[in-house]
Amino acid sequence: MSRGRFLSLEGGEGAGKSTQARALAAALRERGVEAVVTREPGGSAGAEAIRALLLEGEPGRWSARAETLLFAAARADHVEKVIRPALDEGRWVICDRFVDSTRAYQGVAGGIDDADVLALHAFGSEGLLPDRTFLLTLSLALGAERSALRDRGASDRFAARGSDFHAAVATAFAHFAAAEPERFRRIDAAQPPEAVTAAMLAALADWLP
Amino acid sequence: MSRGRFLSLEGGEGAGKSTQARALAAALRERGVEAVVTREPGGSAGAEAIRALLLEGEPGRWSARAETLLFAAARADHVEKVIRPALDEGRWVICDRFVDSTRAYQGVAGGIDDADVLALHAFGSEGLLPDRTFLLTLSLALGAERSALRDRGASDRFAARGSDFHAAVATAFAHFAAAEPERFRRIDAAQPPEAVTAAMLAALADWLP
Repeated sequence: MSRGRFLSLEGGEGAGKSTQARALAAALRERGVEAVVTREPGGSAGAEAIRALLLEGEPGRWSARAETLLFAAARADHVEKVIRPALDEGRWVICDRFVDSTRAYQGVAGGIDDADVLALHAFGSEGLLPDRTFLLTLSLALGAERSALRDRGASDRFAARGSDFHAAVATAFAHFAAAEPERFRRIDAAQPPEAVTAAMLAALADWLP
Repeated sequence: MSRGRFLSLEGGEGAGKSTQARALAAALRERGVEAVVTREPGGSAGAEAIRALLLEGEPGRWSARAETLLFAAARADHVEKVIRPALDEGRWVICDRFVDSTRAYQGVAGGIDDADVLALHAFGSEGLLPDRTFLLTLSLALGAERSALRDRGASDRFAARGSDFHAAVATAFAHFAAAEPERFRRIDAAQPPEAVTAAMLAALADWLP
């Protein structure tokens, strides 16, 4: 049995990552590929407990460094308990956010050196990277609008961070994609949902039966 | 106002660290030195929440690497929110366990490289080290007996880890003390409690008014 493929979906708030992760899994299943959908922060029992620490409480509860260490701890648990076992059993894994989100949010936009984020990832998760990462791109205005439609809390959090922060995140993702063209595929998330799923599927054609 | 002194107490289970931290603070107070007593893991609101994740649940809940990252995250919060502010205000800090415990338990006894533990500490807490560390030494047999007297749960945890583990921890502490004779003071914890406190106080004479 061959190892499964590890896919991640990245992008700013409101880009439709969660919806598209599920849609991509369904489309893969129709083609005979079993895919596990998971998310970060979280995805395993321990990592979900850490997620609660990260998302509950007041904004600014954690320093950027403590937060980055918590993300690395959650990811280490998620990779060990869920992602690696699934890949080893030949299943594909579709992850809604992975290390590139930490690099963009805590790293570039939050002031932590990218080299430090990657060093923590090397320590905790042996530096595991997705085989392919889909960057769902969307204008900041449309992302904010979709976040607001989705839920009030997310909209508050979106607004609280300010447009400079979200612009920095978008720029960071664009740089990561440019630096690793083999791993990244940019997908226009302003298209209708079915077109976004089809674009991802087309970008996996070389790996599909 | 001069910066306060940062003291840590280290050693295996049953060595009396918590009791001695309080006794040392009381003795310092009599000499006009205000000392904050704190502990790890924990010591700040965020770090206590991480402590709960570390101590609750089944043994083996966390991999050694996830656990080491959680300790580093808790310590980063503790240093930023409690230890540094107190030191900056001129107060002394007495900490029941600090980074040397992570080096001994997760590091030497748990299989994580000491260089990695120190790199995480450098990232999270700017590598802050105590000005003086008291290593409370006790035979493994006496430590186990005192742990059992203190509480049944601790005794179970002690027994669960096995004597090889506790011997590795004791050896690790002894090596750290030998490697940094300026920072460490070995204190015989088999003495009566008053004698242990007096020995620590004597080892601080150069800094006392």
